[in-house]
Amino acid sequence: MAPVVPRSGDSIFANLEHVNAELFTLTYGAIVRQLITDLEEVDEVNKQLDQMGYNIGVRLIDEFLAKSNISRCVDFKETAEVIAKVGFKMFLGVTASVINWDADGTSCSIVLEDNPLVDFVELPDNCQGLHYCNILSGVLRGALEMVSMKTEVTWVRDMLRGDDVYELNVKLLKQVPEEYPYKDDE
Amino acid sequence: MAPVVPRSGDSIFANLEHVNAELFTLTYGAIVRQLITDLEEVDEVNKQLDQMGYNIGVRLIDEFLAKSNISRCVDFKETAEVIAKVGFKMFLGVTASVINWDADGTSCSIVLEDNPLVDFVELPDNCQGLHYCNILSGVLRGALEMVSMKTEVTWVRDMLRGDDVYELNVKLLKQVPEEYPYKDDE
Repeated sequence: MAPVVPRSGDSIFANLEHVNAELFTLTYGAIVRQLITDLEEVDEVNKQLDQMGYNIGVRLIDEFLAKSNISRCVDFKETAEVIAKVGFKMFLGVTASVINWDADGTSCSIVLEDNPLVDFVELPDNCQGLHYCNILSGVLRGALEMVSMKTEVTWVRDMLRGDDVYELNVKLLKQVPEEYPYKDDE
Repeated sequence: MAPVVPRSGDSIFANLEHVNAELFTLTYGAIVRQLITDLEEVDEVNKQLDQMGYNIGVRLIDEFLAKSNISRCVDFKETAEVIAKVGFKMFLGVTASVINWDADGTSCSIVLEDNPLVDFVELPDNCQGLHYCNILSGVLRGALEMVSMKTEVTWVRDMLRGDDVYELNVKLLKQVPEEYPYKDDE
């Protein structure tokens, strides 16, 4: 049987169903505004966005695996590259790059120059501690957990805070053995 | 000068920036879940979703007018057709139809057979009063208000409640004269 070749992020993206990016941006903005109103504390908003993202990530991974033809990455390094090159393209229509690997290949940064979540966004003075895009870190964490990788995902650079790009540090904490709800071929 | 011909919803949609529909669906689901947790009362959730939609609609109309080449509809009837055929396609990637006009042309229904907001959604028993897609009615109301039409938008049929389609009644309450922040050619 011919091996199943992963398709590029572009070709996968073209074949999926879409909605308008501005509608998504405004809808996401409405969530953030709602959370700021309800929770008041910026730290709590950050936490809640991350948790929402986590819940999304644990489901979005199914769509990712189903549509990308990517079955298993050999290691964390390959996983990070696939997230950046295929994952971000497939879901947000943008490409990311991977930089700053540490020596043992368990920590890297994913860098985004373009980020549809933040179009038209400016942080007011009382929200300077807000990680506006924290849903993204949660999505990564949730999705990676579903493929057996416990990670910590933190923002290093944020254009809303004056940085030149968005940079997410992804640190592999541990690789847990996959648990299936069913017995395999044993 | 040749008249500017409105483009079809399909061609406009193809030329806009997109995100993955499933990401949008899950993100919207996260909002609804958050509101249910925070507000507890289903009626309050309906109100809040409508208000969020309204805020989105008043901004989304700019994108709509900018990208659709539609400058002005002659009347409410044409407006409703444009929303159904161009608006829904442009933002959600689906087409809607307009039915049930009343005799004086101020009330109609917009019918959706396909609705990306509700993929994988089932209402639990304690949420039977929820208008899950209430953000849509708010978006319509907000967008229409920006083109001088005060409307009331209510759900008539809802597939999550067992109906065969989604049906939104749109009733024109009054057409207000446009107010510009600047003086025209006076």
